[in-house]
Amino acid sequence: MIPFRPRLAAFLQRPAVTRAITAVILFNAVVLGLETVPGAMRAAGPLIVALDAACLAFFVVELGAKMLAQGGRFWRDGWNLFDTVIVGLALLPGSSAFGVLRALRILRVLRIVSVFPRLRRVVEGLITALPGMASVFVLMAIIFYVGAVIATKLFGPTFPDWFGSLPLSGYTLFQIMTLESWSMGIVRPVMEVHPHAWAFFVPFILVTTFAVVNLLVGLIVNSMQDAHAEESNAATDAYRDEVLAKLAVIEQRIEKIK
Amino acid sequence: MIPFRPRLAAFLQRPAVTRAITAVILFNAVVLGLETVPGAMRAAGPLIVALDAACLAFFVVELGAKMLAQGGRFWRDGWNLFDTVIVGLALLPGSSAFGVLRALRILRVLRIVSVFPRLRRVVEGLITALPGMASVFVLMAIIFYVGAVIATKLFGPTFPDWFGSLPLSGYTLFQIMTLESWSMGIVRPVMEVHPHAWAFFVPFILVTTFAVVNLLVGLIVNSMQDAHAEESNAATDAYRDEVLAKLAVIEQRIEKIK
Amino acid sequence: MIPFRPRLAAFLQRPAVTRAITAVILFNAVVLGLETVPGAMRAAGPLIVALDAACLAFFVVELGAKMLAQGGRFWRDGWNLFDTVIVGLALLPGSSAFGVLRALRILRVLRIVSVFPRLRRVVEGLITALPGMASVFVLMAIIFYVGAVIATKLFGPTFPDWFGSLPLSGYTLFQIMTLESWSMGIVRPVMEVHPHAWAFFVPFILVTTFAVVNLLVGLIVNSMQDAHAEESNAATDAYRDEVLAKLAVIEQRIEKIK
Amino acid sequence: MIPFRPRLAAFLQRPAVTRAITAVILFNAVVLGLETVPGAMRAAGPLIVALDAACLAFFVVELGAKMLAQGGRFWRDGWNLFDTVIVGLALLPGSSAFGVLRALRILRVLRIVSVFPRLRRVVEGLITALPGMASVFVLMAIIFYVGAVIATKLFGPTFPDWFGSLPLSGYTLFQIMTLESWSMGIVRPVMEVHPHAWAFFVPFILVTTFAVVNLLVGLIVNSMQDAHAEESNAATDAYRDEVLAKLAVIEQRIEKIK
Repeated sequence: MIPFRPRLAAFLQRPAVTRAITAVILFNAVVLGLETVPGAMRAAGPLIVALDAACLAFFVVELGAKMLAQGGRFWRDGWNLFDTVIVGLALLPGSSAFGVLRALRILRVLRIVSVFPRLRRVVEGLITALPGMASVFVLMAIIFYVGAVIATKLFGPTFPDWFGSLPLSGYTLFQIMTLESWSMGIVRPVMEVHPHAWAFFVPFILVTTFAVVNLLVGLIVNSMQDAHAEESNAATDAYRDEVLAKLAVIEQRIEKIK
Repeated sequence: MIPFRPRLAAFLQRPAVTRAITAVILFNAVVLGLETVPGAMRAAGPLIVALDAACLAFFVVELGAKMLAQGGRFWRDGWNLFDTVIVGLALLPGSSAFGVLRALRILRVLRIVSVFPRLRRVVEGLITALPGMASVFVLMAIIFYVGAVIATKLFGPTFPDWFGSLPLSGYTLFQIMTLESWSMGIVRPVMEVHPHAWAFFVPFILVTTFAVVNLLVGLIVNSMQDAHAEESNAATDAYRDEVLAKLAVIEQRIEKIK
Repeated sequence: MIPFRPRLAAFLQRPAVTRAITAVILFNAVVLGLETVPGAMRAAGPLIVALDAACLAFFVVELGAKMLAQGGRFWRDGWNLFDTVIVGLALLPGSSAFGVLRALRILRVLRIVSVFPRLRRVVEGLITALPGMASVFVLMAIIFYVGAVIATKLFGPTFPDWFGSLPLSGYTLFQIMTLESWSMGIVRPVMEVHPHAWAFFVPFILVTTFAVVNLLVGLIVNSMQDAHAEESNAATDAYRDEVLAKLAVIEQRIEKIK
Repeated sequence: MIPFRPRLAAFLQRPAVTRAITAVILFNAVVLGLETVPGAMRAAGPLIVALDAACLAFFVVELGAKMLAQGGRFWRDGWNLFDTVIVGLALLPGSSAFGVLRALRILRVLRIVSVFPRLRRVVEGLITALPGMASVFVLMAIIFYVGAVIATKLFGPTFPDWFGSLPLSGYTLFQIMTLESWSMGIVRPVMEVHPHAWAFFVPFILVTTFAVVNLLVGLIVNSMQDAHAEESNAATDAYRDEVLAKLAVIEQRIEKIK
């Protein structure tokens, strides 16, 4: 049994195998895309469904082989978990019954990200930026909760569609934060009933926009510092080693004089 | 009396006490959120109101204890003033009569910011960025005042809802600055009466957007400089000390030769 | 005559005089603001008009004095030209007849910028950023001209209100660049007649947005470089002088040994 | 034949010739602009068409001369290809029959970019920024494909105008990414039928906006690093050479002592 696992791992990492997996993912993407074309479904519906099932079977076998090859390590890699959840979605009992679960099968196309190292790195870059933004996210959550409670109490009775409950208010405040139709669509109608409503909405826009801007500034400064530190240290270190080496030589020679 | 104050201060800074305060703030947040759920109010309205009153009483006692413990120093900390104002709002006579003041009780949830040091630092960071932006804010205020007077004089008589008075014009210009429905909603209708209205609005958009962009650029450059200065100095200083120490040694040795 | 001019110049630069000019500008701002309040005009219309005329007279005298004091140098300062044009607007014959020129009198409030050095510096900063953006502006002008000609030819006959002529198309494309109602307001209706219209508008949005983003990036990089160069050189120079001084001392001592 | 090509190349690079080409491009821009003015076409239609044909003939001769002068090198310069395609568009048989191809003749004005070195550099700067953004573009394409398939499956049957097919869904998702009428125009109507539709659209907005923001951050960091590396190295190198030269002198003198 011992020689089998490494051999399987080596097989799975062969370029030809990786390329085959990529090809199946892309082929599956096309197949799932074809399912949205009524003409294609009418002409070759059963074939398309069968091809999708074949792709799914291929993924199940592939993930099974990976689990076997990597053993316990398999579960420590976030991308493996991601692949397993995405493929597992399609295996849920009754998953074909619910339209939503059927639609989510297309998420399998996202596996392309876990196959290409460059895309993986972009996504990992996006995800590693998140913890640094945690405080601002918590702050935004507090602002949204406070804003939603105030809006629900003040405008809920008169505008139940927009502010009738906490979730409705939260959604409407998110729309206002994105500045979509905030004035003509929401605030002007509200001001016809509550003339001072601007005193709530304009500060809300200023505060949330300012928080988002500071999030952006923080992201830029962090990325810049990381990039700068690496590059700058490399240059400075090389120079410093040169000067210190020279000084050591001089020191030794003086030593000899003495 | 002397040994009592430090003992109270130490008690208030115990982790268990801080955690209790945080718990009450979060519990109060949930209670105030429940007030917006009609079903909850029908089922347990008096209980919810009583729980909110209990939370308020807890905060009053807590702030009173803090005042007693810190004495005059209490009023020199901005966060204490913030807490006092927010809690004080609910104690105003008749505050329960006005819907607005009732709704503002949820602001107490913002106390969570003053309890968590990381959130405090984010908010303090946002606030310390403000003075550097003061000149641009004053400039924006001047542009808005001038724009509002011009818009009121030119378009006030024909579009009283949007430009009927200085405050109305100011609000509409703020909407235009956020680019919300500026053209289809406001400027195109105005241009049907005043065909050259674009000559006012398009420059207004360009100028205010450009000012905002420069605000953003200034923010980024400032944050970057702060971050850079710290980091860079640390690295350079270490290197400089190393070289200067080496040079001092060489100098001493040459001294001995002489 | 010779001793009079310097004395006048010194008088105009006295803090008390500057403060008086500032006060008159602010007072004039309030007076011009009051003109937009119907109640105020009904109650004290002639007084308000008279006060505005008094302010104008004050500005004319002030600028005359400045011209006398500074002589030819007066016209070499951009801010003086700005003040003269703004005040001169109100002196145009018939200026009180046209609503537009009357409304533009409020531009005098902008003089506050030329009085406060900090605001002057902000505006000068914005203006000095413009030449570096000239190439991108020219490029945008070309893109808009090309886009307007194409849009006018393709969509002018069917949507004369939006694309009936080059200026109308230019305005509509500006609206589309700001993303205001570009799809629901303009492109979806156009696509009902010209189904492939998206092939013009989506690339137009991508290209102009990308150009604007690059403008922003250029602005940030430039500001950062300016800020960085100053700061970094100061630190490096101090360190370099220290090391070089030390090396010179060592060199001298070795010289003596020889 | 040998002395003719260099002479032609030299002739084409003469400032007077470049200026003449620029003049014809600008003149052609005005002529093509006049074609959109109904009055001008009525008054001098045939003349305008003839002038445009003359400009086109001039460009054909100019490009032919360039091809002759540069030989094989001609096709290796991207700007020459650009000029050839743009001019060639107008020579397609039947090009005058289709309104679209007629309208695209205005693209010739873009030749102004290939004539002015500063504009060329701006465009080249924009284009060289693209490869660094390739990974994010591929990621966005995947997100859009996945989003379009999900939206088509879930909302296609009930909202065929917006989500009836993959291309329609892609266009609607692009509109939503630009935040144009995303809520009032699209998501609120959709939520009236599918109450949980926000669970698809709000994450879509957050993910695509976050990806765009990271694209922007990457662009800024890259530009900054490029700018910084050049500038910083120049300063550091000069200093380093100075210190190392001094150390070499000291070393030599100590050598002599020994």
